[in-house]
Amino acid sequence: MTLIPTPITRDTCAALDADDALAPLREQFDLPPGVIYLDGNSLGVLPRATASRVQDVIRHEWGRDLIRSWNTAGWLDYPQRVGDKIARLIGAAPGEVVAADSTSVNLYKVLSVALASVRARDLDGRRRVIVSERNNFPTDLYIAESLARQHGFTLRLVEFDEIAAQLTGAAGDELAVLMLTHVHYRTGRMHPMAEVTAAAHAAGALMVWDLAHSAGAVPVDLNGCDADFAVGCGYKYLNGGPGSPAFLWVHPRHLAQAPWQPLSGWMGHAAPFEFTPGYRPAAGVTGFLCGTPSAIALAALECGVDTVLAAEAHGGMAAVRGKSLALTDLFGALVAQRCAGHGLTLHTPTDTAQRGSQVSLYREEGAYPIVQALIARGVIGDYRAPGILRFGFTPLYLRFVDVWDAVEHLVQVLQTGEWREERFNQRAAVT
Amino acid sequence: MTLIPTPITRDTCAALDADDALAPLREQFDLPPGVIYLDGNSLGVLPRATASRVQDVIRHEWGRDLIRSWNTAGWLDYPQRVGDKIARLIGAAPGEVVAADSTSVNLYKVLSVALASVRARDLDGRRRVIVSERNNFPTDLYIAESLARQHGFTLRLVEFDEIAAQLTGAAGDELAVLMLTHVHYRTGRMHPMAEVTAAAHAAGALMVWDLAHSAGAVPVDLNGCDADFAVGCGYKYLNGGPGSPAFLWVHPRHLAQAPWQPLSGWMGHAAPFEFTPGYRPAAGVTGFLCGTPSAIALAALECGVDTVLAAEAHGGMAAVRGKSLALTDLFGALVAQRCAGHGLTLHTPTDTAQRGSQVSLYREEGAYPIVQALIARGVIGDYRAPGILRFGFTPLYLRFVDVWDAVEHLVQVLQTGEWREERFNQRAAVT
Repeated sequence: MTLIPTPITRDTCAALDADDALAPLREQFDLPPGVIYLDGNSLGVLPRATASRVQDVIRHEWGRDLIRSWNTAGWLDYPQRVGDKIARLIGAAPGEVVAADSTSVNLYKVLSVALASVRARDLDGRRRVIVSERNNFPTDLYIAESLARQHGFTLRLVEFDEIAAQLTGAAGDELAVLMLTHVHYRTGRMHPMAEVTAAAHAAGALMVWDLAHSAGAVPVDLNGCDADFAVGCGYKYLNGGPGSPAFLWVHPRHLAQAPWQPLSGWMGHAAPFEFTPGYRPAAGVTGFLCGTPSAIALAALECGVDTVLAAEAHGGMAAVRGKSLALTDLFGALVAQRCAGHGLTLHTPTDTAQRGSQVSLYREEGAYPIVQALIARGVIGDYRAPGILRFGFTPLYLRFVDVWDAVEHLVQVLQTGEWREERFNQRAAVT
Repeated sequence: MTLIPTPITRDTCAALDADDALAPLREQFDLPPGVIYLDGNSLGVLPRATASRVQDVIRHEWGRDLIRSWNTAGWLDYPQRVGDKIARLIGAAPGEVVAADSTSVNLYKVLSVALASVRARDLDGRRRVIVSERNNFPTDLYIAESLARQHGFTLRLVEFDEIAAQLTGAAGDELAVLMLTHVHYRTGRMHPMAEVTAAAHAAGALMVWDLAHSAGAVPVDLNGCDADFAVGCGYKYLNGGPGSPAFLWVHPRHLAQAPWQPLSGWMGHAAPFEFTPGYRPAAGVTGFLCGTPSAIALAALECGVDTVLAAEAHGGMAAVRGKSLALTDLFGALVAQRCAGHGLTLHTPTDTAQRGSQVSLYREEGAYPIVQALIARGVIGDYRAPGILRFGFTPLYLRFVDVWDAVEHLVQVLQTGEWREERFNQRAAVT
């Protein structure tokens, strides 16, 4: 907990904003008026640069220069260029990351290679288990389930507290791959990446990380942790826009001897413009590309990544992390101070070492309509079944007074009971 | 050959334009001044509607409405909505097509299901051969090679003239899947879809079509031909923009009993927002989705598809096809009339039934620099190794006088020998 005087007032929050070295970064974004946006962990907000950059791609690179832009505008190596920028945020080196496809498709690629790599050295076939968390983000589980079925592995889903037991003894001997999401999408709980990776390696397994809720939100050091593979999302804390291309990272030791990744499209070929049959994977992480890159979508993603890289001039990811924890601490403290007796419990670890950049609250009844009532007031968080009110805190554009104001609305929603209104209880397709 | 008086003059061409019912469709596009664009088979031109529509998605749907747009702007079913529009161009019904991912990724999905389907009914394991053309577009071959390796099939590559022999006798008994690109990317040769599909079925095999050079260019009737699966590209004749999402089609008989497609991401799940482990594929073609759709890229693709659908008011794909053949006939006739003695030979069938919407010329020497010299003059075609000058003809925005002017430039390039200049002989990364 940041040392701030209690009880906390709105003036306390304004003073924190006045002291905030990252405050100027908010100017990078087009924030809609009247909105306090606590959902950057689902869809990041629009950077100011994006609209005009995308217009430039559409009107000039595509409209005017047409096919020539593959060469002159650098469309061809756009996945690698944006990948190199993302690399700076996750402790990766240039040439180790590409931005392409979706998180699910990228997970399919790296997990396939991870399983093939285990098979290649585990000749007696004992390591045939993929372990993950039962309530990991489902798309990761669905992809792992598919690959397990195809290649004769078992996907074993365990609770958070049961992971350690999977890394030792007989279970550890069976473990092929440990696949975890670094920061949990629902609880905001963060795994200690270095420690878990080391334990997976000690068990003889490979480590695959999903950085969907980490990249751009918390410091990540993939090479420092000696992880094996990682994937992540472009449209959350990287602000790349709805359905933005995702990214993947491969440790150099797996690039040196990479078995084919199965999505062997032409952009991953060593010489795509020779138009020859017979797949020969390109050297390095380029071999993990598949189809033709979307120049428009990559331009939007690059603008988003640039908003995070802009923090490098203000203390970098360490400063982002400091503010993130201050924001989430403040939110937790204000909920405790002002919402007591309303049935809310904290669902995110109080220990900052175990917390990502979000706070989830739990309420047995009414979590969904309370979130809807808040959204109607301009405080945008989201609901995740069962019973979770989820709030993401993006240090690049959130102010401490926003946290105060959000909690003020929450207090009012709870005190008035307005969340019981019919209109807040109608479920939308996407929650 | 269209019956037009010879020798053809520029006035002949202007008269054809004056008679052209599709001429108004050209107004849908932002064509750069001074350019004759004969490369719409590689990257379609920019529709006028695209820039403002994409701005609307960025500024309003994303920037202002943020996460709410998953419901309010229909982002969630955007792949199905654009898919239903594409369906109208390829003889498919609503609910049979989705726009998503890349052509390569989509081919991976449908070919996986095709192979699984063959396996399920071929219990003695005799059908284990995938046949395709040796010089089919390489990404298709690379994906098929990957799946063949994974699932114990053989990819057999044959010449065009050898395909028929693969569909009968002992070869036919081994055939699992015939996978062809309907219109060949290099030669422009078009397979008779109904006939080839029937022959594949008669051999007991499944038929997978790649419509990359067909959708929006030539009439296609997938259901009428009783094909099994198809994929296609969004950024060629559909004008969806560089690296646009691609599409896939699945015949309803394969949807009723679909084995899992392997890229089982959350958007293909029956209830993605229940966030439950255990993949259950969604009913219908939705089960062929994988990751989160890109709203920005799909908006651009929709604008492109709409430019083709606009032809429905002017005779539809039949009228588009009529003009396409008139344009390619004219080009062939003018090359014959005006470029004789310059070493060019026609590499595209003269029989209109076997021709897509492009004309490829072959020249033993200088094909690459001749294309570059034409591009420098504003006539944009492209080069494909070995020796091919490739020209695509998009009836929506090309005029008959454009064909005349393009050939006039070709005549000048050949007569002056300017293509021998050093600057036209330097190879770019993308050709």
